[in-house]
Amino acid sequence: MAQLLIKNIHMMDGGRKDILIEEGRFSQIEEAGKVRIETDRVIEGREHIVMPGLCNTHTHAAMTLLRGIGDDLELKRWLKEKIWPLEARMKIEHIKAGMELACLEMIKTGTTLFNDMYFMESDCVPLVDRMGIRAILGEGFIDAFDEHLEKEKRAETEKVINACASCSSGRIRPSVAPHSAYTVSEDGLGWCRDLADRHGCPIHIHISETGKEVKDCIRDHGSTPTRYLEDIGLLGPDVIGAHCVHLTDEDISIMKSREVKISHNPISNMKLSVGDILPMRPLMEKGVTITLGTDGAASNNSLDMFQTMKFTALLSRQRYGVSSIGAKRVLEMATRAGYLSLGSDGGEIKVGRLADLILLDRNHHSLVPDNDNISNIVYSCSSSTVGYSIIGGEIIMEDGVVNREREIIQNARKAASDLLSGDEGS
Amino acid sequence: MAQLLIKNIHMMDGGRKDILIEEGRFSQIEEAGKVRIETDRVIEGREHIVMPGLCNTHTHAAMTLLRGIGDDLELKRWLKEKIWPLEARMKIEHIKAGMELACLEMIKTGTTLFNDMYFMESDCVPLVDRMGIRAILGEGFIDAFDEHLEKEKRAETEKVINACASCSSGRIRPSVAPHSAYTVSEDGLGWCRDLADRHGCPIHIHISETGKEVKDCIRDHGSTPTRYLEDIGLLGPDVIGAHCVHLTDEDISIMKSREVKISHNPISNMKLSVGDILPMRPLMEKGVTITLGTDGAASNNSLDMFQTMKFTALLSRQRYGVSSIGAKRVLEMATRAGYLSLGSDGGEIKVGRLADLILLDRNHHSLVPDNDNISNIVYSCSSSTVGYSIIGGEIIMEDGVVNREREIIQNARKAASDLLSGDEGS
Repeated sequence: MAQLLIKNIHMMDGGRKDILIEEGRFSQIEEAGKVRIETDRVIEGREHIVMPGLCNTHTHAAMTLLRGIGDDLELKRWLKEKIWPLEARMKIEHIKAGMELACLEMIKTGTTLFNDMYFMESDCVPLVDRMGIRAILGEGFIDAFDEHLEKEKRAETEKVINACASCSSGRIRPSVAPHSAYTVSEDGLGWCRDLADRHGCPIHIHISETGKEVKDCIRDHGSTPTRYLEDIGLLGPDVIGAHCVHLTDEDISIMKSREVKISHNPISNMKLSVGDILPMRPLMEKGVTITLGTDGAASNNSLDMFQTMKFTALLSRQRYGVSSIGAKRVLEMATRAGYLSLGSDGGEIKVGRLADLILLDRNHHSLVPDNDNISNIVYSCSSSTVGYSIIGGEIIMEDGVVNREREIIQNARKAASDLLSGDEGS
Repeated sequence: MAQLLIKNIHMMDGGRKDILIEEGRFSQIEEAGKVRIETDRVIEGREHIVMPGLCNTHTHAAMTLLRGIGDDLELKRWLKEKIWPLEARMKIEHIKAGMELACLEMIKTGTTLFNDMYFMESDCVPLVDRMGIRAILGEGFIDAFDEHLEKEKRAETEKVINACASCSSGRIRPSVAPHSAYTVSEDGLGWCRDLADRHGCPIHIHISETGKEVKDCIRDHGSTPTRYLEDIGLLGPDVIGAHCVHLTDEDISIMKSREVKISHNPISNMKLSVGDILPMRPLMEKGVTITLGTDGAASNNSLDMFQTMKFTALLSRQRYGVSSIGAKRVLEMATRAGYLSLGSDGGEIKVGRLADLILLDRNHHSLVPDNDNISNIVYSCSSSTVGYSIIGGEIIMEDGVVNREREIIQNARKAASDLLSGDEGS
C-alpha cells in the first residue's frame, strides 16, 4: 500500500505538523517540515485542520430512504401506519439504495466508522466496502418469540459473518445484532451470545430506550432490561447498548461491572420523545464508556455526527450544568471511545493507530476565528467543512467530492419514490 | 430596479413554479412555464428548492469574534474572566470585523433578516448595508443605574436611528435595545419606550433568561420582570422579548394581552444552562407569537438558523411529546413570524411580499429523498445546501459564493487574534 504524506496540517490544539501514513496507519507525526520523504501522494494541509474520523456507534443506515415520513405522528402510529408497512415492502434494491445514500451522507459529514443494524445486511457488504468507509454490519435479529423466525434470523446473521469474512479489505466486520430484550426470545439471545463468542464479534442491541420497554420487561421478567440481559448472560465488554435512557442505579452498576459500551443517541431520543435523557452524569461518575450514535435517519433525521456532538454537549449542560462536560470529552466520545468500543484501533491521530481521519476547511466561517478549534468542532462546525476523508490511508473524499455522488443521489430518490408509490396511506 | 425571474423552481410542498420578482417584491408566482417575460436576469431553478429566507430575531452579531472562548466555564466566571474583559478592549475595527463575519455566516446559512443588539452599532450601518442583508440594529442600552452612562447610551441609541435614516436601501432599520430590566434604570427604560414610540422602532430586550434574574427582580421590584416591565409601560406589540424562559402564567397572559413577540433561543438556553426551557406549550396555547433566534456566537456558538429550527422542534417534542409541534409550525416561526414581529413584510413566498428568499440544492444528501421537503428542512437539512440568497430581489449569494468572502474571513481571524493577544487570562 502506498504512502500518503499530509504536509503542514493544522492540529486541533494548535501548531502545524507533517503526517505520514504507511500501510493504512499513522507512521510519523512530526513538526511541519520535518518529514522528508519522496512520495507521489501528498496533500498540502496549510488550509485544513486534521481530526480523527467520527464513529457512529448506532444507526440503521438504509432508513435514509424513509427520511421525513410521518415524523410528526405519535410513535406507535408512526411505526404502525408508516414505517413498518414500508419496511415490509422493502426489497434488496431499496435497501442497497438507502445504504449507499447513508454511506455517502456519513462520508460527507465526517464519519469513518459506523455500527449498523438493519435487514439484508449480508447483501450490503460488497457495496459498503466499495464506498471505502469502515463499518460493522449486523442483521437486525428479531424473532418475535417465534421459532420459525428465529431459525431464519440465525441463518441471516451467519450469512453476514460469512460475507464479511470474504471481504478482503478488512474494513467491514460483522456484529451479532439481537434487536432488544422485548423482540428476541431468551433462546435467541442465548444463541446470539454464543455466536458472538465463537466469532469474536461485538453484540449490538437496543437497551431501555423507552419507559414502556422497562415497565413491560419488569412485568414479563421481573427485572429491568439490563438486569434481565445480565441474568441470561448476554452482557459483556463486547456489547454496544443503544439508547440506555431509562437506567436504574443497579443497571448502571451492571453496565460498569460488565464493561458494556453505551451508544448515546441524543437526537433520536429527543425526536421520539422517549421520556428522559441518558443519565450522563451517573454514567460518567461510574466510568462507564459512552459513545455517540445518530440512530436511523427516520428518527433523527440526519446521520451527521457533528450535530450529535453538539446535542450531546448541550443536553448535558442543560441537565447538569455548564461545566458538566467539556468539548474535548464530547469529541473523545465521538472518536476514540467509539472506535475502541467496536474493537477498532482508530479514532486518534497518533503513530500506530489506523489512519482514519478527516480534514476540515479552516477558512469555513463556522471554524473562524480559531480561538479554540476543539470548541469550534463541537459547538460551531458545520459538517460541510469536511473536505477530505481518509480511511485506512485511502482517500475516499477529496476536495469535498465522493465517487459516484450524483448516481447515488439519483438512485436513492428513485428507490424512495418506487417504495412509496405503493403507499396508499402517505 | 431590474426584474428577476426564477424558472422551474421546486416548491416546498411539491410542484414547480416560475417566480417573478419586481421592485424587490414577488410579482408573479405561476405554474412552471407560465411566466413569459423577457428579462436578462434569470435563474434556472430545476435543481433547487425555494423557501423564504430565515429570520434571526435575537443575536449579538459581532460576538462571532469571541466564538469558543472559555465556553466550558460557569456562566459567571465565563462573563467575568473572559467575555467582559475582552468586550472592554473591543475597538471599532474588532466590532466591524466580527459584524462582517456574522453577516457572512448568516447569509451563507440562509438568514435574510436579523435583529441585533450590541455596541457601536451606528458605525456598522454602512457595512451591514453593503453586505446586502436585511437587519434591525440596536445599540445595547445598559446604564447600570448610572446617570452619566444613561446619557451616553441615549446618544448612542439616537446615533443608530440617524445612521439608519441615512441608509437609502431601506434594508437597515433601527431598534431601541434596552438590555434588560436588571441592567437598565426605570428612567432609562421609560426613555427607550418614548423614543421607540416617536420613531416607530421595535424594542429589543432580554426578559427572564435565568431564574436568578427573576428572583432578583422580585427582590428589587416586588414582581417578575414581565410584570415589572408591564407596570412601567414598556410592553407592547413592538417588543421582542429574548429568551423568556422563566415565565409565570401571569407573565404569559401579559405577553398575550400586550402582543409581545417572543424570541426563542433554544441553543443558547441549553448551552448556558439557564435552568429551564421556553414554556412552548402554554405560550402556543395562549396564542403568543414565537419567533426564533440564535443569540450571539459566544453562547451558541453558531448563527445557523437551520440548527435552531431543529433544536426548537426537538426540545418541544422532548418536553411535550411527538405531536406537540409540527415541522411546518417551526418553519413558520423561523420565517413569517420573525419577519412580522420585526415589522417587515417578508418571510413568505407570496405575491406582494418582500422578495427575501433562499434556494436550496435539492441534490444535497440532507434533502434526499424528497419524501417531505418541510420535514427535511427542519430535521435534516444542512445549511450548506443554501446556494442562493436573494434579498429584496437582489442576489447576494450566487452558487454558494458571497462577495469578499476570503477577505472577511481573514479580517476576522486577524481581529480576533489582535483582540486576544492582550488577553493574559486566556
